[in-house]
Amino acid sequence: MRRSERIVAVTKILTDQPYKLISLNYFTERFNAAKSTISEDLSIIKKVFSVEKMGKIETVSGAAGGVRFIPDRGVKDIQNVIDELCECLSDSTRILPGGYLYMTDLIFNPALMDKVGEIFATKFSDLGAEYIITMETKGIPIALMAARALNLPLVSIRRSSRVTEGSVVSINYVTGSSRKIQQMSLSRRALPEGSKVIIIDDFMKAGGTAKGMLDLMAEFKAEVLDIGVLVETAQPTDKLVEDYTSLVVLENIDDFKEEIIVRPSSWVTNLK
Amino acid sequence: MRRSERIVAVTKILTDQPYKLISLNYFTERFNAAKSTISEDLSIIKKVFSVEKMGKIETVSGAAGGVRFIPDRGVKDIQNVIDELCECLSDSTRILPGGYLYMTDLIFNPALMDKVGEIFATKFSDLGAEYIITMETKGIPIALMAARALNLPLVSIRRSSRVTEGSVVSINYVTGSSRKIQQMSLSRRALPEGSKVIIIDDFMKAGGTAKGMLDLMAEFKAEVLDIGVLVETAQPTDKLVEDYTSLVVLENIDDFKEEIIVRPSSWVTNLK
Repeated sequence: MRRSERIVAVTKILTDQPYKLISLNYFTERFNAAKSTISEDLSIIKKVFSVEKMGKIETVSGAAGGVRFIPDRGVKDIQNVIDELCECLSDSTRILPGGYLYMTDLIFNPALMDKVGEIFATKFSDLGAEYIITMETKGIPIALMAARALNLPLVSIRRSSRVTEGSVVSINYVTGSSRKIQQMSLSRRALPEGSKVIIIDDFMKAGGTAKGMLDLMAEFKAEVLDIGVLVETAQPTDKLVEDYTSLVVLENIDDFKEEIIVRPSSWVTNLK
Repeated sequence: MRRSERIVAVTKILTDQPYKLISLNYFTERFNAAKSTISEDLSIIKKVFSVEKMGKIETVSGAAGGVRFIPDRGVKDIQNVIDELCECLSDSTRILPGGYLYMTDLIFNPALMDKVGEIFATKFSDLGAEYIITMETKGIPIALMAARALNLPLVSIRRSSRVTEGSVVSINYVTGSSRKIQQMSLSRRALPEGSKVIIIDDFMKAGGTAKGMLDLMAEFKAEVLDIGVLVETAQPTDKLVEDYTSLVVLENIDDFKEEIIVRPSSWVTNLK
């Protein structure tokens, strides 16, 4: 195999499995090539990814070492994705009766959620998380794509317990905005005690659901490293949780003027 | 840029966006290269993908033409993934009280579901579907990854309607095994009338849920091209739906002997 051919295959193998450490031996055996040859291939890929802002190629030395692809979206790229998302969200036909915002189609758009997942993966790359936690239903696509980009298992909290989950831990929580008492539950075997986790969800208004998720994580003695939400509302400014990162801020929905005002979050605009 | 460098970037761009048609002009402009040069790059990538069974590179000619990556898993690869999945599923600690099978961890494992999604994409590639349809909650990860691999939007049916969905169509259905009446609903705006769809779900026992989904699709005048399920039970052999493709067959769960018997489906074993 010539370099230009082998390098295509190596690129595909690396990017197919984000964060997965692949030994140099795997490549030398699969392509019947010398270690030095594969090393040169890898440094070309590394250089191209760096110049073209396509992510990082990380080499881990030592016996258990190898090489891996780390999704890492550039600042401009992140800002473009979020600008595009804000434009979609500000379409006034998204206003539902009661002043709600229809965003289900965007949340179930795999190409868009792939990008959003990689943005969260870029933000949370250095925290050493072991699990991504979300809440059914609409949190799942975003969290799954983030978990994919971080090569972590996803754990989805449920609104009701089911027979196919085994023994569960349930808590009651109060939704922050409508003050309703609701229940959330998680299978005991879904999350080992003492895990390090990141919470990712689609929407935050007052933060009642996020607060409930923190309480449930405390039952599992989990350490919550950070919280990511796709869209937060500007009001109320006092949320029930303090530390979180949103990508988009929903400023206002004017049912009468048929106007939706959304903007990139300060985390997005302050990226450098 | 040298060929070995450019070809890395072109590979990444193509594989990042399955099924998305990218014009040759995009590549010539981005890499400041002649059309003939890019064409040579593409034929190298095409050849490598074919030899290494990494998917297809398809060229569409004409003014609206371009090139795209089509995920296409080889037979051996599909059989290996399903064998591995069967081995995981046959672990007797997965038996839950009542003789249920715990498979939530596998369904929320992004790396595994990525592969399963590509297997469904390989199976359903030529049908001309416009939407992937699933049922919350556990159908979502599988269906989302299949939708990603096919570059199609996902539409998730809900068990209860919510204010953030707008007007919905609801139907009652009878679960095939436990004979309970349940409700499923779908937002009117989630699916245009007359769409061509593929249904993907995690589990089929008697097929009551799948039958309900077919009925709901009829309300939307949708044409259901095929149904894919990750796991079907061997019993009952008479399902309420006729045409579907499963990947894994759950033969038996013996609560007393602590034994789970699963095997690849005949579609998987008959692949050539």
